[in-house]
Amino acid sequence: MKLTITELRVHDIRFPTSRELHGSDAMNLDPDYSAAYVVLSSDVGVDGHGFTFTIGRGNEVCAAAISAYVPLVVGRTLDLDDLGEFSRRLVNDSQLRWLGPEKGVAHMALAALVNAAFDLAGRVAGKPVWKLLSDYTPEQIVDLVDWRYLTDALTPSAALDLLKDRVSGKPGRELQLQREGYPAYTTTPGWLGYSDDLLVQLAREAVADGFGQIKLKVGSDLAADIRRMRLAREAVGPQVRIAVDANQRWDVEQAIDWMGHLTAYDPWWIEEPTSPDDILGHAAIRRAVAPVKVATGEHTHNRVMFKQLLAAQAIDVLQLDACRVGGVTENVAILLLAAAFEVPVCPHAGGVGLCELVQHLAMFDFVAVSGSTEGRVIEYVDHLHEHFTDPVRIERGHYLAPTAPGMSARMQEQTLADYAYPAGRIWR
Amino acid sequence: MKLTITELRVHDIRFPTSRELHGSDAMNLDPDYSAAYVVLSSDVGVDGHGFTFTIGRGNEVCAAAISAYVPLVVGRTLDLDDLGEFSRRLVNDSQLRWLGPEKGVAHMALAALVNAAFDLAGRVAGKPVWKLLSDYTPEQIVDLVDWRYLTDALTPSAALDLLKDRVSGKPGRELQLQREGYPAYTTTPGWLGYSDDLLVQLAREAVADGFGQIKLKVGSDLAADIRRMRLAREAVGPQVRIAVDANQRWDVEQAIDWMGHLTAYDPWWIEEPTSPDDILGHAAIRRAVAPVKVATGEHTHNRVMFKQLLAAQAIDVLQLDACRVGGVTENVAILLLAAAFEVPVCPHAGGVGLCELVQHLAMFDFVAVSGSTEGRVIEYVDHLHEHFTDPVRIERGHYLAPTAPGMSARMQEQTLADYAYPAGRIWR
Repeated sequence: MKLTITELRVHDIRFPTSRELHGSDAMNLDPDYSAAYVVLSSDVGVDGHGFTFTIGRGNEVCAAAISAYVPLVVGRTLDLDDLGEFSRRLVNDSQLRWLGPEKGVAHMALAALVNAAFDLAGRVAGKPVWKLLSDYTPEQIVDLVDWRYLTDALTPSAALDLLKDRVSGKPGRELQLQREGYPAYTTTPGWLGYSDDLLVQLAREAVADGFGQIKLKVGSDLAADIRRMRLAREAVGPQVRIAVDANQRWDVEQAIDWMGHLTAYDPWWIEEPTSPDDILGHAAIRRAVAPVKVATGEHTHNRVMFKQLLAAQAIDVLQLDACRVGGVTENVAILLLAAAFEVPVCPHAGGVGLCELVQHLAMFDFVAVSGSTEGRVIEYVDHLHEHFTDPVRIERGHYLAPTAPGMSARMQEQTLADYAYPAGRIWR
Repeated sequence: MKLTITELRVHDIRFPTSRELHGSDAMNLDPDYSAAYVVLSSDVGVDGHGFTFTIGRGNEVCAAAISAYVPLVVGRTLDLDDLGEFSRRLVNDSQLRWLGPEKGVAHMALAALVNAAFDLAGRVAGKPVWKLLSDYTPEQIVDLVDWRYLTDALTPSAALDLLKDRVSGKPGRELQLQREGYPAYTTTPGWLGYSDDLLVQLAREAVADGFGQIKLKVGSDLAADIRRMRLAREAVGPQVRIAVDANQRWDVEQAIDWMGHLTAYDPWWIEEPTSPDDILGHAAIRRAVAPVKVATGEHTHNRVMFKQLLAAQAIDVLQLDACRVGGVTENVAILLLAAAFEVPVCPHAGGVGLCELVQHLAMFDFVAVSGSTEGRVIEYVDHLHEHFTDPVRIERGHYLAPTAPGMSARMQEQTLADYAYPAGRIWR
């Protein structure tokens, strides 16, 4: 089905989360969770909503980048049966491409638009996006991907074979998903800005709520990290997994040394130990800290970087982000790569709205791509969900499968008014 | 010396170069060479000029990103003896960092500001920037660098040793530079949009003008590339080097196959054979196409990527860009890495103003870092120099050392008025 995009509206939405040190870590000291938010209107009377996530200052730059794509979107046809074409049209603009290519602000802006197009497609089809994608044929899924730069690691025909192998199990996995949900872990206890008492209290609550994994931020102060890790381990007991996250704070040798001091408390993975660009550095850290796993991805800027992280055996856990790479289409490429290399995907979430978005990707991965939830968990943070019209639902440490059409990306109208920066009620 | 930045003005400057297909290649079909241009005013009555380069649409996004740094610059102290601090202050803003980190639009904007700060420092010192940097002590040079993420490949103390080794030869090399200039190669003949006749004519002119190397764009049409390579080889004879440049057009296997068809005409290097992010892909291509060299760097987005290209033995030639990475300070890090790995730096130039900027980096490299011009050439394209107050001077295929204070970054006032987008005379 084809329609025409009639309007593109951009909103600069910011939440003053830095006032309470929610989201504080070794690199991101005082985030104000924000969204460069876009609404695509169409001539069939259905809107699509999408956004990219930032942590405050510079959200207006992402908004400006979204506006740069207006001539490629407004007044143009959107073929809901060929959303790969929409994505490639934006990626390959011969002048805008220079701003990346396929990275940074320009690519994050593109993510907002591609995600909005999928939200729109889901609404038109009357399906949540995880279900929309899961109902695609293997050929349709392969056609979403921009295969440029991937074929030395995965060819379209190899991806097609992989997807066809998964077809017969899809109905059973979809039933399982609707019955059990998708496993989650929680980062809520572990922010650096929280007191030890709050850490212990929230860690205990997480276990009581059914989570099998929590995560602590580390990397600022070694003595404090050792103390917090000990407190957390005592609070959750030996069975619950504790991941740690350094948010890129270390050089390679420093990462290896620091992790040596935490092994007594059995960390499950070390996340973002160093620069997200340092593929070979991650590989060196992984060799040194095993059996502790290495996880990264929330700042990995495109499929070419993920290809190399996988080819170099640099990661045990792939943490895609819904808004850092070029939206759903590039994330489909990344899910296919991860499945081909047999590396589990545990999406990055938190922030504002990231939980809402990534659940669709992880559930699609389970039903149609990897076919497994083993070793897989979606990050969960209990912040800001009330601002969405279709917020995530968590039960017994699991995300429940969304049922509403779209990608759960839509914010409440009142939120768009109140949190508009700088003119909204909250910021005035 | 410390001063205060009193004002930051941003200009969106664009040249309608697409009208004549100057700068056309396999990926960049119709560039309008552009600059997000910044003027820093100071309380000592001296301005600093800098810019980042784009190819048209989206230049306004870079301008918006420059404006995002205003609170970190205006009204703040600039210590001309510690410009590394200025760079790190901008790079490490806890919220803006999310927009990269250290890549894409945000990092390109930062380059404009850091370059402007060095232009200002040169003007205050009464020295061209290549000379300002060459007169620094090894300790001062090391202090310019943000060493985070580099120490597994190069430590500050190893860099200091390298620089100290070069000190005794500096006066002699400076004399040589002022006498002979720095060798250049020209891309003027090789744009894809040019006819065969124009290619042959410009290739002959390049040889007559004293250039020992020219460059052809390739990657759109194999038969045409073979024909153009043959014509160029016939025009310049067997002694002049012909580099080819695919502008990221190929996948890994395709690059290897395509280059196999051109070897009969003795290409000197293949530039940007695939995605600039594909470090391991470049390494695979390099192993396959030797003895043809592999060159890349104009889209390599920061020092961490260059560190890996060097560590993975993925390149024979490192092509830094003045505006893609975080300006002079990060390029000093890249020059040090290249020297430590003994890989020659041949800066990317062309566009608008890139020749003006990179000559300072290459000349500093010769005097104080690598200490050599062997296997090193600066790209030269004969476009748009008339818009600068201190344009490059080319004689006998060499860049002559600039003598005016600053980084040769300043555009003519009339240019800033006429080419302002969209309100200037040229665009109205």
